[in-house]
Amino acid sequence: MTLDLDRLRADTPGAARVLHLDNAGSALPPRPVLDAMLDHLRLEAEIGGYAAAAAAEPKLEAAYDSIARLIGAAPDEIAMMENATRAWDMAFYGLAFRPGDRILTAKAEYASNTISYLQVARRTGAVVETIPDDALGQLDVAALERAVTAAGRGPVRLIAVTHVPTNGGLVNPAAAIGQIARAHSIPYLLDACQSVGQMPVDVGAIGCDMLSATARKFLRGPRGVGFLYIRRSMLAAIDPPFLDLHAAEMVAPDRYVVRPDARRFENFERNFAGIVGMGAAVDYALDLGLDTIRDRAWGLAARLRDGLAALPGVTVRDKGAERSAIVTFTRESEAADALQRRLRAAGINTSVTRRRSTMADMTDRGLDAMLRASPHCYNTEAEIDRFVAAVAAG
Amino acid sequence: MTLDLDRLRADTPGAARVLHLDNAGSALPPRPVLDAMLDHLRLEAEIGGYAAAAAAEPKLEAAYDSIARLIGAAPDEIAMMENATRAWDMAFYGLAFRPGDRILTAKAEYASNTISYLQVARRTGAVVETIPDDALGQLDVAALERAVTAAGRGPVRLIAVTHVPTNGGLVNPAAAIGQIARAHSIPYLLDACQSVGQMPVDVGAIGCDMLSATARKFLRGPRGVGFLYIRRSMLAAIDPPFLDLHAAEMVAPDRYVVRPDARRFENFERNFAGIVGMGAAVDYALDLGLDTIRDRAWGLAARLRDGLAALPGVTVRDKGAERSAIVTFTRESEAADALQRRLRAAGINTSVTRRRSTMADMTDRGLDAMLRASPHCYNTEAEIDRFVAAVAAG
Repeated sequence: MTLDLDRLRADTPGAARVLHLDNAGSALPPRPVLDAMLDHLRLEAEIGGYAAAAAAEPKLEAAYDSIARLIGAAPDEIAMMENATRAWDMAFYGLAFRPGDRILTAKAEYASNTISYLQVARRTGAVVETIPDDALGQLDVAALERAVTAAGRGPVRLIAVTHVPTNGGLVNPAAAIGQIARAHSIPYLLDACQSVGQMPVDVGAIGCDMLSATARKFLRGPRGVGFLYIRRSMLAAIDPPFLDLHAAEMVAPDRYVVRPDARRFENFERNFAGIVGMGAAVDYALDLGLDTIRDRAWGLAARLRDGLAALPGVTVRDKGAERSAIVTFTRESEAADALQRRLRAAGINTSVTRRRSTMADMTDRGLDAMLRASPHCYNTEAEIDRFVAAVAAG
Repeated sequence: MTLDLDRLRADTPGAARVLHLDNAGSALPPRPVLDAMLDHLRLEAEIGGYAAAAAAEPKLEAAYDSIARLIGAAPDEIAMMENATRAWDMAFYGLAFRPGDRILTAKAEYASNTISYLQVARRTGAVVETIPDDALGQLDVAALERAVTAAGRGPVRLIAVTHVPTNGGLVNPAAAIGQIARAHSIPYLLDACQSVGQMPVDVGAIGCDMLSATARKFLRGPRGVGFLYIRRSMLAAIDPPFLDLHAAEMVAPDRYVVRPDARRFENFERNFAGIVGMGAAVDYALDLGLDTIRDRAWGLAARLRDGLAALPGVTVRDKGAERSAIVTFTRESEAADALQRRLRAAGINTSVTRRRSTMADMTDRGLDAMLRASPHCYNTEAEIDRFVAAVAAG
């Protein structure tokens, strides 16, 4: 399928207003997402929040179906969550770790996850091991295999990896990691925060047992909402960190029963406008096609890398066999923060990605901060060229 | 202060459309709340989610200040949460319990909390004790004192009570409970989900250490947002159940530091439109005055109880020394579900409160379901009378 760029841009209220290259931060939503949210909020104000939720019930259920379709899961394996962090938390913190149990992760792991590993290691005595990168700069699959099969070490209780790291342009080899996890029956948690919406993500093909995602990034949905995928066979292995009367039901004054599906990770109260908006975002992406979205976004990112690499004093810092729509670079003559401010003043949105967000990776590379520019399918070639010119102009 | 009822109703988009007596479920928001949310969502769509959050920063900070003012706390003791359940969870599940430690709670405790007590009791060996009601039907303060000072029992590690239970009309004696908690240095967690926004709630006067609240109920804010209060001196006693890079910061590849204020219970991503809306709701309530709101809402509830009590076959089920704006009743000739459906068809919103939501209380009282009608200050005497007539008409 070819994209109708004019329609895409007409669908995007912000496209005419800003040059938005911060889709890895929070993308510009298309009109149907915004409308779905505004309509639901107005309905809540007009007939009350509970009546509005009841009226939106078919839309809410359809959102589970759409998400399941998006990632190749079943609807009962999906939970609607407050955001990707809390989705990831409800899976990770629900796993049981004993002293000496090993958690394997990657070099470019998001610091939020790293903090959680360290917290749980302190609580339980589990051990965190970072698998080194290969020559291409992505997780070294052979090193992972060696770590899993190493003799005389504690059992590997979890493989947890960020699919597309927050910086570095990288797409980690999620399916190759999944083959190792499957072969050794090791639970596999994939942080798909930056990949869902940007490219096809299929939990069957990847072989992950748990996956967390957000709406606001490449999926182009609202802030304050995300989802969790839990493979049906993993449910028994996770004790939901929190329970409430939506996740479980009282059956006697001193006894409760946890519900049988992934919604045991939800709670009764949710951001319903956000869920309806996320459903609209998923439908919009499915309608365009995830292959089509990826091809265009990655094509624009490649153009961006080429343009930046040709600038004197600019170094593109991306790596990996496959390059995502996240482009990170530094400029000799201008700190990332100053560059971001200068671009924002010119109506251009980017992010600064800092050492504290991917500590192990950035420390190794001797980097403190980089500018991150992340195009999406609705950006234009002219915007990319304007961006490169703006970087050079300062 | 006297309320300007015409202005109140003109401010409330839903007031002309429904007879809303489900303020204990999810209230009708005033116009400033709706507008704050719609404006923020539109801004996100126009300039991007991160730029919108940066632009809203003063409003976001002001929301902390307003909430602090609402409950007599300091702004650094407030965390913005996804909802009251997750606020309560982040406090409760972060406490340390050893085998034999006792958790004291009340009879009419919300089932969501009860499920959490049972889950943590199973995990840790802690013991849950339900303090009986007094003759008025509220938590028996003398019995609580006896339970706290009982010889030869495990230490009381927590007193956790719902301020205004989801049913039963009750206001639990929160400040008297607080005096006992303070006298014996026992952490005290108050579920203020139904009390905040309905009446003055002051953490100093009550003496609680932790308090959870939602925006959508009597506070008249959005769905999908709430807040947590943690007394500064309690911070050290709670290990945040989850951490991310907003709650903590990486300072070396294997070391993080947790932030020094209550925002350690938040995470980086939030429902920003919801927070801005909640801030507007708090300001609206503060502007009216919480005493004024309480007097009017409780006055309407009293009129409602009187009207219902006069109907043949109707039994008002409320109890306690102080009666809140939550009115619960049964009708001999009509099950609560059927009555709710009939009223909804007549444009009247209510809730059904079920045995599974307050299992111990309802089991004791031999009740399976009740109708719950909960007026707010923007309801009118004529609406109350119309409601009573509608109940009688079926």
